[in-house]
Amino acid sequence: MTALPAPADHDPAPAVAGLDTIVSLAKRRGFVFPSSEIYGGINAVWDYGPLGVELKNNVKRAWWRAMVQERDDIVGLDAGILMHPEVWVTSGHVESFTDPMVECANDKRRFRLDELPGTEELTETEKRDPGIVEKLGLKCPVDGGPLSPPRRFNLMFRTYMGPVEEEAAAIYLRPETAQGSYVNFKNVRETSRKKLPFGIAQIGKSFRNEISPGNFVFRMREFEQMEMQYFVRSEDAARIFDEWLPRRWEWYLRYGANQERMRFREHAPDELAHYAKKAIDIEYRFPFGWKELEGIHNRGDWDLSRHQAASGENLEYFDAATNGSFVPWIVETAGGPDRCAFMFLIDSYREEEVKGERRVSLALHPELAPYKVAVLPLLKKRPEIVEMCQRIVSDLRRDVMTVYDDTASIGKLYRRQDEIGTPWCVTVDVDSLEDGAVTVRDRDSMTQERISADQVKRFVLDRLATARGG
Amino acid sequence: MTALPAPADHDPAPAVAGLDTIVSLAKRRGFVFPSSEIYGGINAVWDYGPLGVELKNNVKRAWWRAMVQERDDIVGLDAGILMHPEVWVTSGHVESFTDPMVECANDKRRFRLDELPGTEELTETEKRDPGIVEKLGLKCPVDGGPLSPPRRFNLMFRTYMGPVEEEAAAIYLRPETAQGSYVNFKNVRETSRKKLPFGIAQIGKSFRNEISPGNFVFRMREFEQMEMQYFVRSEDAARIFDEWLPRRWEWYLRYGANQERMRFREHAPDELAHYAKKAIDIEYRFPFGWKELEGIHNRGDWDLSRHQAASGENLEYFDAATNGSFVPWIVETAGGPDRCAFMFLIDSYREEEVKGERRVSLALHPELAPYKVAVLPLLKKRPEIVEMCQRIVSDLRRDVMTVYDDTASIGKLYRRQDEIGTPWCVTVDVDSLEDGAVTVRDRDSMTQERISADQVKRFVLDRLATARGG
Repeated sequence: MTALPAPADHDPAPAVAGLDTIVSLAKRRGFVFPSSEIYGGINAVWDYGPLGVELKNNVKRAWWRAMVQERDDIVGLDAGILMHPEVWVTSGHVESFTDPMVECANDKRRFRLDELPGTEELTETEKRDPGIVEKLGLKCPVDGGPLSPPRRFNLMFRTYMGPVEEEAAAIYLRPETAQGSYVNFKNVRETSRKKLPFGIAQIGKSFRNEISPGNFVFRMREFEQMEMQYFVRSEDAARIFDEWLPRRWEWYLRYGANQERMRFREHAPDELAHYAKKAIDIEYRFPFGWKELEGIHNRGDWDLSRHQAASGENLEYFDAATNGSFVPWIVETAGGPDRCAFMFLIDSYREEEVKGERRVSLALHPELAPYKVAVLPLLKKRPEIVEMCQRIVSDLRRDVMTVYDDTASIGKLYRRQDEIGTPWCVTVDVDSLEDGAVTVRDRDSMTQERISADQVKRFVLDRLATARGG
Repeated sequence: MTALPAPADHDPAPAVAGLDTIVSLAKRRGFVFPSSEIYGGINAVWDYGPLGVELKNNVKRAWWRAMVQERDDIVGLDAGILMHPEVWVTSGHVESFTDPMVECANDKRRFRLDELPGTEELTETEKRDPGIVEKLGLKCPVDGGPLSPPRRFNLMFRTYMGPVEEEAAAIYLRPETAQGSYVNFKNVRETSRKKLPFGIAQIGKSFRNEISPGNFVFRMREFEQMEMQYFVRSEDAARIFDEWLPRRWEWYLRYGANQERMRFREHAPDELAHYAKKAIDIEYRFPFGWKELEGIHNRGDWDLSRHQAASGENLEYFDAATNGSFVPWIVETAGGPDRCAFMFLIDSYREEEVKGERRVSLALHPELAPYKVAVLPLLKKRPEIVEMCQRIVSDLRRDVMTVYDDTASIGKLYRRQDEIGTPWCVTVDVDSLEDGAVTVRDRDSMTQERISADQVKRFVLDRLATARGG
């Protein structure tokens, strides 16, 4: 691997926004709610509220534009969550997609072995050692009771399809979108006429029955992925792998991630997944430590070879130039919009004192911000002002997410918009009725400028294009 | 209900595009593939290919813009597929979300009672009659064997959450997104500060273990919904219900649906779902008959009252004007992007003879078309022409989905783009190198006009804005 950008192996400043701060803001302002909260919640599932769904959709759109729309060599796919169960036998998930779990003999509580105190340094091989609990003298962290030897717990959710609940119809909720790209490889290649190297990008829900989920939307049992499978010649795989590392890194920076809180981390040989030849994570320093944001994997020909053997379908690529056929290798980039959105919330969080008051703002990239513009009347008792606001809102709404608010004083309205990351506030005042001009306030600089009301949409669209680098 | 637009109770011309035609085009050109096809497929799940995912995303975006972005009174939500299991007890799904199923004593095959020959006219009450099989003398349609009395088969998929597969942790895959909006009602209202009437819109996957799925993407076991729950005062419910009917009808027309193939159909009293006070479907004449495209439902206060009683959470709305509190009623609009995309494929399908050759085109609304522009070189052997194409493509790609193709003669390239609904083809020829102009061909009129290469993007964006009515 050559010339990684800024390998952040130094220790950056501690997190400004702690986990509680973000979770509390997210709930208070309608980004993320605990799922089924009125029934006491459901563990490790979160619902995206009115602002969260916009943020997350914006993250997905930004990824799709960079990965599909702006590239000639990658096409999209949206495969089902439910797949033929053989897929998961072939992929190795039925056998190997497991975590080591131990059970307390007293209270029957179950734990992931590698999350017990004292197991931080265990290698993957040691985690599989049946005698490891005894060797380390591990006890139940709740009541100190004796723990069982570790057994492998499969993380796939199972359900039953068809009108008879019997084993024959047992299927799984996909634990990753990648397999959907592999089993559709032939159909996609034939219909899209793409030549190697080319990729298949997918965004969609996956499910993992985690033993110990947690940390807000970081590890959920239901989560969303943004995965891209890039099919290449074996001899190009190492080079192409190296190319994707900075490309994906840059994507995060483009949308405002703080590279002081990012680093690359290569997987140790005994840590590699069963399919991987090489894996490097882009890690982010979450409030709870360095964690994977995205993984870039060289999967070799493992996936397509296995599916070819198991299905009997020819998945080779015919190279017209050499008249040869071969099974392509795969370089994968695997991230997710939940972690992305979470990271952007943390990185954009600002707290400062302005004129003796605490000001909270989210310096979100304008393209990611839930609302692009807020239109605010300085005097809501003047119907002409409210009408002028409404005209501006109607015009803006055709193109961008816009909000109107008149339920507080202007200072409070600004603070509300700051806290949800709205880049521009447009204020209509008494003078506006005379001169047809409005005040546009910038979220980050808090500077105000006066522009013609007719120019507001142009102003916003131009600023958005500039922010996008267009 | 007053003044429904164009109640199509007459019989329009028969379908131009049969089911086979659409399924075949969809597979051949990469709109929709059978899921897990290399393993023999999985019943009633379909995967969206490179063009299908764009079409479906465009349908979802169009709905979201009309329902959320352009309105002041509706906000979005993205609730989990997995919810607290009590939700489905309260909603009535555990008890009532069932279909009547009969089983053949000989071959153990199972059928939906109401899909057996001779049951077309049965009322809902008759379908529940345990003696109905005997009364009508129904037999197994495969081997003529005796059939069991109907029993209720629950359509929810069940799975198990947490590291122990036991009944206590049994949960369901949601069969509808609506309940996510109800259990989040309080959180959404408090964080969005909306006053009645206001709505919550959701797009997301739902799952139904249909006994007899089929008809391509019309009835799948995994499908996507676009549902909006509008919370209203009881006294306004009937009026608001009537307002949503033409509004939703117009949305389909705006994107090119053929209203000769649409009609309203009101549910008979014994056909109403357990929660519904009134229900009217927008039906579309699919190649296999008149079927529901979208349902508009007056659900009364059934949902919020039930959830309030079961959860103990106060879900009343406090009306500052009257100082009174009450449980809002709900008017729901429930459609889905799969059926929508399917319908738009059927309605846009054109077959004609041009200069002695068969020409197939999809007259998709430009906003729905997977690619907006194709850029084609007239002579791919001239590198300057290819380079000029690439410059145009790079510029367009920042804003719209664009495809470059040089793998056939220009006539064939046009036909390829026609068949996938690309509204504009831009051709670069030898003259372009001299005069900097290119030919833009219109998909529907097949007229060509010569414009400056610099103006291509403006041309496309203007045409898109016009098509959108902007």
